[in-house]
Amino acid sequence: MAKKHILIVPGDGIGQEVTTVGKQVLDRIAEKFGHEFTYDEALIGHVAIEATGDPLPEETLTKMRASDAILFGAVGHPKYDNDPSAKVRPEQGLLRMRKELGLYANLRPIKLFDELLEASSIKPEILKGCDILFFRELTGDVYFGKRERLDDGNTAYDTMIYSKYEVERIARKAFEAARTRSKKLMSVDKANVLESSRLWREVIQKLAPEYPDVEVEHQFIDAAAMLLIKDPRRFDVVVTGNLFGDILTDEASQIAGSMGMLASASVGDSTGVYEPIHGSAHDITGKGVANPLASVLSAALLLDISFGLKAESEAIIAAVDAVLKAGFRTRDIANSETPADKILGTDAMGAELLKNL
Amino acid sequence: MAKKHILIVPGDGIGQEVTTVGKQVLDRIAEKFGHEFTYDEALIGHVAIEATGDPLPEETLTKMRASDAILFGAVGHPKYDNDPSAKVRPEQGLLRMRKELGLYANLRPIKLFDELLEASSIKPEILKGCDILFFRELTGDVYFGKRERLDDGNTAYDTMIYSKYEVERIARKAFEAARTRSKKLMSVDKANVLESSRLWREVIQKLAPEYPDVEVEHQFIDAAAMLLIKDPRRFDVVVTGNLFGDILTDEASQIAGSMGMLASASVGDSTGVYEPIHGSAHDITGKGVANPLASVLSAALLLDISFGLKAESEAIIAAVDAVLKAGFRTRDIANSETPADKILGTDAMGAELLKNL
Ligand SMILES: CC(C)[C@H](C(=O)O)[C@@H](O)C(=O)O
Ligand SMILES: CC(C)[C@H](C(=O)O)[C@@H](O)C(=O)O
Repeated sequence: MAKKHILIVPGDGIGQEVTTVGKQVLDRIAEKFGHEFTYDEALIGHVAIEATGDPLPEETLTKMRASDAILFGAVGHPKYDNDPSAKVRPEQGLLRMRKELGLYANLRPIKLFDELLEASSIKPEILKGCDILFFRELTGDVYFGKRERLDDGNTAYDTMIYSKYEVERIARKAFEAARTRSKKLMSVDKANVLESSRLWREVIQKLAPEYPDVEVEHQFIDAAAMLLIKDPRRFDVVVTGNLFGDILTDEASQIAGSMGMLASASVGDSTGVYEPIHGSAHDITGKGVANPLASVLSAALLLDISFGLKAESEAIIAAVDAVLKAGFRTRDIANSETPADKILGTDAMGAELLKNL
Repeated sequence: MAKKHILIVPGDGIGQEVTTVGKQVLDRIAEKFGHEFTYDEALIGHVAIEATGDPLPEETLTKMRASDAILFGAVGHPKYDNDPSAKVRPEQGLLRMRKELGLYANLRPIKLFDELLEASSIKPEILKGCDILFFRELTGDVYFGKRERLDDGNTAYDTMIYSKYEVERIARKAFEAARTRSKKLMSVDKANVLESSRLWREVIQKLAPEYPDVEVEHQFIDAAAMLLIKDPRRFDVVVTGNLFGDILTDEASQIAGSMGMLASASVGDSTGVYEPIHGSAHDITGKGVANPLASVLSAALLLDISFGLKAESEAIIAAVDAVLKAGFRTRDIANSETPADKILGTDAMGAELLKNL
């Protein structure tokens, strides 16, 4: 029996709706497997700015550090997107959290549920059997380099920057994961142009002899973005920097049919953060139609990675599978053949899931 | 009757094979429409390094400046890709050429030939009717910012940098193109994180009122990479920076079925450079199987954009269409149903094309 303290950080937009379901699932798991999970909640992003002026209030950070794991929603708000001159922005909270908690490794598994093979815009025969695990570096790169306006505001720059130790620690995680899977690792960079990418590639090349059982392939980001669609089964474990990982994993979401199905784990030095890869989706916020499965699968990752509760994690994945097999869909993963009574809102989908747990 | 001087710059790998066919097509057009095209040839990239030690020899640059337009092949060689510490690299020639000739606007049309609808890994019903024109900024961004090693070589950085005038001149080209098409412009950036992207977005927002007939949509690069697969018809004219454009257009090549079908035009202050978006492809170099159609379509773009020869350009596109309709394919665009005798090598495909001109 595990005693654990979980912090729920819904954030903005549909974050609230989907983490509500994620938490219900955690609760049910605790009950079923006899664990004791306690919870707290904290603000981040736009809702935190509204309440306190700060996208990552000190109180939130304190609660985060005190937690055994964090179930996270999303951050962002169109208001700031349309105002490039805003000084305080929701995303600053997210980035600061990643840095403060040392969450340097962002794992994004692209797992295909058979039932959703047809939900993708990519042909099923190209996708079948596809199973990818991305390792996105999360506390370096152009996300955290110096940025500035020069020249009376007429010029702006950001700095893409990597140090060898940063590349090495994420690369080791990826090499080790590759060992437990098909022993293939793809590293993605832009070493034909960027110095930071050449450093990246050097580190990977230097580590490779320590993992002689793992076959390493280097791809440029432009080629990788193309190959991911052309031949997704060529990808197994992929390691890449923060910016390229951001782009490539969003693109890869289309392999799984919808962003609404994809979970991620951000881990590093201490507590782990588990969140959907989708954003705050203000266009559908409050309508009760958001797909909660990414949050539910994030809860499954949380149990597996932070608590080592494998059976519990698999029970959740099996429940998701069962609900999909029973034909239930949220709007984003429905198609023209889905009967109307099988298209569920967020809460109804959550209820179906609980029935299967 | 036009009198023009065209420089052929085959570059590396399959560059030689495909520009040979591109030039044959230009020759045939001159003959058929009564123009006088003279040619010269010059070195760039790996072959230039081998011959002179310099990836962009002074002689090449002089010939480029003296030309009315340039038909370009590709640059790159695996030798350098696997040696991150190489000081002289083929790509430096390409980047210097872009800068020296002021080629700030890279146009990449994603045009779908009906016959190839099935060649893509994306479902035909998602693709049908898709027609995108990318404007990739080509002389700024992290391609040309300062880069350096620090800290005894243990840290490396590159600088993503944009000035307002650089964004404005490419944006104006895109707005103007949008006017002649469906009056929709998508601008892609990462303004929720990057200062250079916030500057980018500011400029687009500031220009928008000058083009009240054009509807502007902003997307973050991660969302755009995802939407391009999910809903490619949402894209019409797209404007973006150098790095994001590099990634997004390679990804978009999968809409057209193969990189082997896509041409690009790089234009700006003086002469224009026309080249396939594919690379040097050393894995198939010398085998005579490369698809020459991207080079042929680059020749068509050259006639249209640099020489204003619309009918001539359309004659080439019609010939490509005819050859595809007749069932001929190079390997990259063939599928399991293509009869063996319809799968042609580079030269044979060129010969079929000439028959149709
Ligand atoms: C919201 C945004 C800053 C963030 C990122 O770019 O990292 C998001 O896209 C993600 O992938 O978590
Ligand atoms: C070869 C490489 C430097 C180049 C680029 O990144 O610009 C290529 O990918 C392109 O798109 O023309």
